[in-house]
Amino acid sequence: MLSPLTSLDDFRAQLAQAGAADQTSLAAAAARNGQLTKPPGALGRLEDLAIWYGGWRETDRPAITAPQVIVFAGNHGVTAQGVSAFPAEVTAQMVINFEHGGAAINQLAKLAGARMDVHALDLDNPVQDFTQSSAMSEAELLAALQAGWNAVDPEADLLVVGEMGIGNTTPAAALAHALFGGEASDWTGRGTGVDDAGLANKTRVVAEGVALHGGAIRDGLDALGHLGGREIAAMAGAIAAARVLHIPVILDGFICCAAAACLLRTSETALDHAVAGHQSAESAHPALLQALGKKALLSLGLRLGEGSGAALAIQVLKGALACHSGMATFAEAGVSDG
Amino acid sequence: MLSPLTSLDDFRAQLAQAGAADQTSLAAAAARNGQLTKPPGALGRLEDLAIWYGGWRETDRPAITAPQVIVFAGNHGVTAQGVSAFPAEVTAQMVINFEHGGAAINQLAKLAGARMDVHALDLDNPVQDFTQSSAMSEAELLAALQAGWNAVDPEADLLVVGEMGIGNTTPAAALAHALFGGEASDWTGRGTGVDDAGLANKTRVVAEGVALHGGAIRDGLDALGHLGGREIAAMAGAIAAARVLHIPVILDGFICCAAAACLLRTSETALDHAVAGHQSAESAHPALLQALGKKALLSLGLRLGEGSGAALAIQVLKGALACHSGMATFAEAGVSDG
Repeated sequence: MLSPLTSLDDFRAQLAQAGAADQTSLAAAAARNGQLTKPPGALGRLEDLAIWYGGWRETDRPAITAPQVIVFAGNHGVTAQGVSAFPAEVTAQMVINFEHGGAAINQLAKLAGARMDVHALDLDNPVQDFTQSSAMSEAELLAALQAGWNAVDPEADLLVVGEMGIGNTTPAAALAHALFGGEASDWTGRGTGVDDAGLANKTRVVAEGVALHGGAIRDGLDALGHLGGREIAAMAGAIAAARVLHIPVILDGFICCAAAACLLRTSETALDHAVAGHQSAESAHPALLQALGKKALLSLGLRLGEGSGAALAIQVLKGALACHSGMATFAEAGVSDG
Repeated sequence: MLSPLTSLDDFRAQLAQAGAADQTSLAAAAARNGQLTKPPGALGRLEDLAIWYGGWRETDRPAITAPQVIVFAGNHGVTAQGVSAFPAEVTAQMVINFEHGGAAINQLAKLAGARMDVHALDLDNPVQDFTQSSAMSEAELLAALQAGWNAVDPEADLLVVGEMGIGNTTPAAALAHALFGGEASDWTGRGTGVDDAGLANKTRVVAEGVALHGGAIRDGLDALGHLGGREIAAMAGAIAAARVLHIPVILDGFICCAAAACLLRTSETALDHAVAGHQSAESAHPALLQALGKKALLSLGLRLGEGSGAALAIQVLKGALACHSGMATFAEAGVSDG
């Protein structure tokens, strides 16, 4: 079980102390993989996925039986800078759509047999515009991390976290820029579809935010507080809780990966339990995945958020485990192994 | 229902006369897609997939309820040239493994809720070594096409065809070389894992086959008879039957795409009902996909055959249809559409 978070430093400590995957199970799963009725390596990344998952779940024949999808929603003061093509009230409208089962993530969670939870985080009280002040106080950041931390079902055996928050590709770009350097334009994309003028404005906003707060950022949690948002912090809190609980995570798109980046820049083993579900159409997502050291399972041009790409990738992981755990060995099947 | 094939020219005629996707359904599905609660285009290729599938199934809210996976097995005289890392008896051993449910494709078909059929095609009587004579006579080719043609369930609403045949990346490479030109080395890869000397030998075999038969090849069916194999021809027959029956097809890897290429080079609309399920690790598969004008849904380094990559891609198509057919519209959900 998880301990409640008493402070940001407590969060840092719990994340840093989280245990590694089980070496015995990794070795047993790798040994089993080598005996299955296929040429060595012929199932490609499916083989790596099954072994990785088995290591975290401490078994050489893993299966997914209790996947959880959590969608966090938050609003952003930085929308006052005109960074989104959609009005901020859409965040709350989409939360109702999630609750009524009408969004893409509802369909994909259902297809995956996943429990789905929705957490709307103080939507009537957007985080501050980071071009003017820090997005969140330390207390607000801790509360948002705790919301994510608490949202994870300790009995889940796979986690996807998604988000909804009009304007939130802007804080995600600012986080990536603050954590990985380069130029603001390297990390700023069109989100739900701003035009060229909108993109230029958004890039200016990202640059201003990082210029204002960069000097105060020592690690990923600092960045999250100054430049993030409640839903982004909650995603980070949930991914961290899953790390402590040894629940494997499939990362979603640009915003989820920005949340994950804050963890990686807080503890270097923070994402060992995570794979990248998909590469989105957001222009900076490939660079962000590279910064995380992750290669996406899917690349289908999605740019919706909500956890949609990661939820779709559950199907790939299920395929990997079905093969790994269900196939006959050469000996069992009486097949010559070359 | 399908008419039996009376001759190779009858096959050519039935393929050429197969009807197109339903334009009304395509338009209705596209209209529905534009009203769903997401930014325009935010589901990327999932949107195109759902519209394409709806057009073939004549509905604007499609679902997959009866997918079929068929695995065809055949043996190849060309294995006498030392082109494979595995002995030819593995083909029959793997057929037993398919029948007992122990192979990768069994697990992936089950995960997809698909009916799975296995057809072993005269395994004790390999097709002739194409470096010495034509692989099949016209009668043998017609019989193999008919085997595939008959294997398709007319009530299926999605088809995956896979194969097992020790040595069959060699005829597949020869088919691609004969149909699309270039050098033998452009199309010849390591298959299940030959070493450098094996690859050089395999390339020589491909070049010799195409040199011997190229002059007699006017279309894809000619190529299939001279250079193919029974399981490759049966795959082509099944894909063609699905085309006539308006059953969408997900293409598998290199060998399946070589079978499909024979159809495309027989009738230019032959593959309108097909999408590429995955890009395999076989080195020439990207070029073959490009020659078919198809972009793969998955690229996970698989090189197993059996229909495994395509069966995994059923999960992606199911995700596309779940979103398309299950999501609320902006009007239904009361969400502002930007």
